[in-house]
Amino acid sequence: MKYNFIIILISLLPSLVYANSNRLTTEPIKVIEPAENVNTSMVELGKKLWFEPRLSRSNIISCNSCHNLAKGGVDNLPSSIGHEWTIGPINSPTVLNAELNIAQFWNGRAHDLQAQASGPIDNPKEMAFTHTLAVETLNSIPEYKSEFKKVFNSNKISIDNVATAIAEFEKTLRTPNSAFDLWLKGDDNALTQTEKDGYELFKTKGCIACHSGALVGGSTYQKMGLIKPYYTKNSDVGRSAVTGKESDKFVFKVPTLRNISLTYPYFHDGAVWSLKEAVMIMADLQTGQTLSDDEANKITAFLTSLTGEHPQVILPQLPPSTDKTPKPIMH
Amino acid sequence: MKYNFIIILISLLPSLVYANSNRLTTEPIKVIEPAENVNTSMVELGKKLWFEPRLSRSNIISCNSCHNLAKGGVDNLPSSIGHEWTIGPINSPTVLNAELNIAQFWNGRAHDLQAQASGPIDNPKEMAFTHTLAVETLNSIPEYKSEFKKVFNSNKISIDNVATAIAEFEKTLRTPNSAFDLWLKGDDNALTQTEKDGYELFKTKGCIACHSGALVGGSTYQKMGLIKPYYTKNSDVGRSAVTGKESDKFVFKVPTLRNISLTYPYFHDGAVWSLKEAVMIMADLQTGQTLSDDEANKITAFLTSLTGEHPQVILPQLPPSTDKTPKPIMH
Repeated sequence: MKYNFIIILISLLPSLVYANSNRLTTEPIKVIEPAENVNTSMVELGKKLWFEPRLSRSNIISCNSCHNLAKGGVDNLPSSIGHEWTIGPINSPTVLNAELNIAQFWNGRAHDLQAQASGPIDNPKEMAFTHTLAVETLNSIPEYKSEFKKVFNSNKISIDNVATAIAEFEKTLRTPNSAFDLWLKGDDNALTQTEKDGYELFKTKGCIACHSGALVGGSTYQKMGLIKPYYTKNSDVGRSAVTGKESDKFVFKVPTLRNISLTYPYFHDGAVWSLKEAVMIMADLQTGQTLSDDEANKITAFLTSLTGEHPQVILPQLPPSTDKTPKPIMH
Repeated sequence: MKYNFIIILISLLPSLVYANSNRLTTEPIKVIEPAENVNTSMVELGKKLWFEPRLSRSNIISCNSCHNLAKGGVDNLPSSIGHEWTIGPINSPTVLNAELNIAQFWNGRAHDLQAQASGPIDNPKEMAFTHTLAVETLNSIPEYKSEFKKVFNSNKISIDNVATAIAEFEKTLRTPNSAFDLWLKGDDNALTQTEKDGYELFKTKGCIACHSGALVGGSTYQKMGLIKPYYTKNSDVGRSAVTGKESDKFVFKVPTLRNISLTYPYFHDGAVWSLKEAVMIMADLQTGQTLSDDEANKITAFLTSLTGEHPQVILPQLPPSTDKTPKPIMH
């Protein structure tokens, strides 16, 4: 009896292992893994710069102001507030797992994190500084000078190295071990039946066509309002600003759905606060289908299972300014 | 020979111990010790609230905006920037070691941290919210409801409990083990000769009359411009706003000098950026003495030795809003 039981267990083992690896290889959504092979000294420097408000004209706005690591890597505003309370033109996308995007910004105008990171510093609606003054600020602080020298082996701080260090820190901002990823890895109990049903609907309704891969999105550009037009007060033309093509008007990078229950409000204009409402609108505009209330609830439940473990971030201690450091300019 | 050496060591021991305890008891500046007996669950809740921008009308301003724990517990601005880019009336004092102050705010209008903590939330120039909406916001978020219940054993979230939790977190923000404190505890090599000379000057010139105790200040109210008037564009009348007494005009709480090299710009109007310049002005206005360049350098060196170890703060993960959570109001 005892031996039979063991034999049954052993004979079941391959199918269990098969079931695990099966999902990993056959499901269109892939697991998010923690960052590997990062330069730890550069990450530490990049973390300081991430929280460094002296990269802004007023000395109060840092990367973390609009991509708050206490809030899913966003500010949870329709669009961000920048220098002199300027309301920005578009919703701040999350920095979490952002390295895995096909490109950065909603219209993909930066090809990677490094190309993105210096943009907000001299954007007059965001940090409103200049790259020259940002570098001058860092150069005036001995602790930064020596840390840049250690990390980049150069006596000269450049805006490119500033962006490279920030990007290296951003690479560490992965959110592994969501309930959905545990299920992908073979833990049948990681998802509730509602979440599993929601995932099936997500695939059969066609959401998966654009929202797949490790980011559950982030890999293609698509028109917002594919089947029916999307009405918005937001004037952003999307990817056509990059390509110059009329056909790219209102085409945006498909956003990641990782941690989506934390990164409200939704869409490039931040017009929708409820995840369920966003799901129903997308099914309607992008696939031409009207979801039932039950279907929308199930898909929303599945999406909530994409919230992963957030990186543990110890607040850095920023080195003090010196007499040579440019003073903050309030206006 | 070997025994003689040991005997000499043993005979020296009492005097070494005596030297240690001597400074601890006889010096007018006292050691900063880490916080003890804090309620750890309340501290964790208070830390979330400290970083919680949803306690502000716009949802982008938190306690940490003006008392940045990455920057010595201040914003390093002459005065803070609040809702709709309103420039505040007075320099933000540091939150580090703030519990030990005789009272809170420059004019001492709050008798402790708990009484202070809710003030900025409904100050229209700061977070510009209302206490009612702040409580409504927290009540709409199940994770906060259950955490408040666990910590305060009550189903009702009140603004008093919000302030109590924030204050409990603030109590942990001590900065022990500065070079000066190590010297106070008996380590003769913790200070350079210049720093020791500076401390002697600090005492003989009379600075110590107001800047003593664990905070090196924070224990009395004094007139800014005691011997000679202080000229400022700042219209704050100081403690007379609290007491109604004409004699309290331009009387302020003596600020702590702990971590003073990090908390520029100086004075209640934030008018002076250089610590050495601040030292020379204070000697002139408060004691009627003109310091030599060498004296000012030495006192400044001593003040820099008051920078302690900063608390290690892991950024909290703030729970998401729900459909019931009041939306941010930009204007």
